[in-house]
Amino acid sequence: MSRRTNIQAAARLTPIFLAILALCIPAALLAQRTEGKDPLPSWRDGQAKLAILDFVREVTDKSGPKYVKPEERIAAFDDDGTLWTEWPRHINQIQIAFARQRVKQAAKNHGEWKYQQPFKAILDDDDKALALALTDFWNKLDLLRETHGGMTVDEFGATVRAFLATAKHSTFKAPYTEVTYEPMLELLALLRANEFKVYVVTSAGADFIRELSERAFGIPRECVIGSTPEYEYRETPAGGGYLFRKANVDILNDRSAKAENIQLHVGRRPIFVAGNNDNDLEMMGLAAGGKNPFLNLLIRHDDAEREFAYEDNSAKALEKFRSRNWTTVSMKNDFKVVLSFREE
Amino acid sequence: MSRRTNIQAAARLTPIFLAILALCIPAALLAQRTEGKDPLPSWRDGQAKLAILDFVREVTDKSGPKYVKPEERIAAFDDDGTLWTEWPRHINQIQIAFARQRVKQAAKNHGEWKYQQPFKAILDDDDKALALALTDFWNKLDLLRETHGGMTVDEFGATVRAFLATAKHSTFKAPYTEVTYEPMLELLALLRANEFKVYVVTSAGADFIRELSERAFGIPRECVIGSTPEYEYRETPAGGGYLFRKANVDILNDRSAKAENIQLHVGRRPIFVAGNNDNDLEMMGLAAGGKNPFLNLLIRHDDAEREFAYEDNSAKALEKFRSRNWTTVSMKNDFKVVLSFREE
Repeated sequence: MSRRTNIQAAARLTPIFLAILALCIPAALLAQRTEGKDPLPSWRDGQAKLAILDFVREVTDKSGPKYVKPEERIAAFDDDGTLWTEWPRHINQIQIAFARQRVKQAAKNHGEWKYQQPFKAILDDDDKALALALTDFWNKLDLLRETHGGMTVDEFGATVRAFLATAKHSTFKAPYTEVTYEPMLELLALLRANEFKVYVVTSAGADFIRELSERAFGIPRECVIGSTPEYEYRETPAGGGYLFRKANVDILNDRSAKAENIQLHVGRRPIFVAGNNDNDLEMMGLAAGGKNPFLNLLIRHDDAEREFAYEDNSAKALEKFRSRNWTTVSMKNDFKVVLSFREE
Repeated sequence: MSRRTNIQAAARLTPIFLAILALCIPAALLAQRTEGKDPLPSWRDGQAKLAILDFVREVTDKSGPKYVKPEERIAAFDDDGTLWTEWPRHINQIQIAFARQRVKQAAKNHGEWKYQQPFKAILDDDDKALALALTDFWNKLDLLRETHGGMTVDEFGATVRAFLATAKHSTFKAPYTEVTYEPMLELLALLRANEFKVYVVTSAGADFIRELSERAFGIPRECVIGSTPEYEYRETPAGGGYLFRKANVDILNDRSAKAENIQLHVGRRPIFVAGNNDNDLEMMGLAAGGKNPFLNLLIRHDDAEREFAYEDNSAKALEKFRSRNWTTVSMKNDFKVVLSFREE
């Protein structure tokens, strides 16, 4: 009788108990498991990794002096050369690769391109001439206007998706969405797990990057701050509204514009900024000028073996990081793995 | 002995059991309770309420033909006259009330204002002259430039917060953040509970509205799309970066600009749009031109007793809503309660 009662009591409790356990325990176990795990396994131990982990711990420690409320945890990441590979730009930068394809597709309607740079270089497959032509700002603008404008927002999105479906990176022969830096994706995940709101702040076209930002970086469309043409609201005769992309560049989101457009879109200073050259210094300055603790990261391309070694536009940034004692990241020394698709 | 064993067993289980119960049950109960509850208690039963509840049910029903994925559930709300009261504009529209205060504070440094509209009317406390002066677009622009520009983003934020700390609505004698429409706040909460991302899309200054959007509407700073001056990135001699608001209006976020700037900020068409006059038609057209189901709402100011009766800029909107069979909301008939602070 005593045993029976006992068993009956247990039997009565068991289903509810198990159901509740099933609901609660996995979450608890998961939290425990994550705590013990290295959140940045593709980073080698060193100053950069330590600076990141310290910063994240400090700004999320409610009882500490450096605590920052979740809504103020804004992170801004450059993309080209910071989240994924871009070198050499006239060949591998994704938007130039897209423009090259578009120029070849549309060449039959543009006889004048045979004589006009940078179109001529693209049609001649002359990479050297193209690299030279694109050092001219107006040539670059012409290329963007001709290949990214003069169509609706919906048409442009479809064109970019068609490009992404088959395009491969010339050097690494992988889809563009997989030539990301694995350590940087881990960093994005770490920040998100700690209630940071992460933005990509790019000089590339916002609507272009939006077609891949979720897949490549885990960043939703509305968190992409980039360059844009003028949009023009129009209506079909039947009354359906749509947006037309004019053949111009209305917002060129680079250098000081990156800082200014963070204000336009977010209305807060970032507290975490990552970039790879002088064009990212102003958004780093914005982080440094605020009242909150901040971390600025400069990614250095110093690994000719696993990626590329170049620092063509980083003189000011290197000097600033040195004098301010900000944190630089050596791809050669700080990254255990470089490119995501390799899963080295 | 049998009882003791029983009790011991129960005693062993109880603390864990209670702890787990404490964790799990409130959530389950809450979900159950919310399901049976009217999510729009301040709305009278009628076509508008029905249209809203039907729409939200349909786009969130995964097995239904009108399902819309959460990331595409973008809602865009005008604010003045849609989320809160704005009439008569030259007195009660919050940004004009702010500008009036700023003009009086700064008058001693601006001798010329004694002779110049709309400043003269403000200094003379001549509401009739001010109403007339502000019908001129350039006068309105002058007022905004003088009172909202020529200072840093941080200084402007502090000025707006100081204004909000004491300002009261002239007619209703309540803080501005409480002259919201209670039924509309319930609607915002309903949409958020159903994984909509809600933006306020306003012709008012983005940085102004950001100082109150969370408190008044539950909308975070980064979800405010509004008018802005040109921002200019600057650095202090010590090297701290900050943003300066130039004394101009760079983005005037009204009419077609509302649709265009939804693309700039969000990169998606809205599927739910609410406004109160012709200036909101383009963003409604953008919703209507997409492939997803959509709901456009027009708030009609027809309640002279509880608020104001006016439709000074709604002729096109009324005709469009009639011909398309879109959903209008009569504040008189559809709202059980109007203003939040009254808790009628």
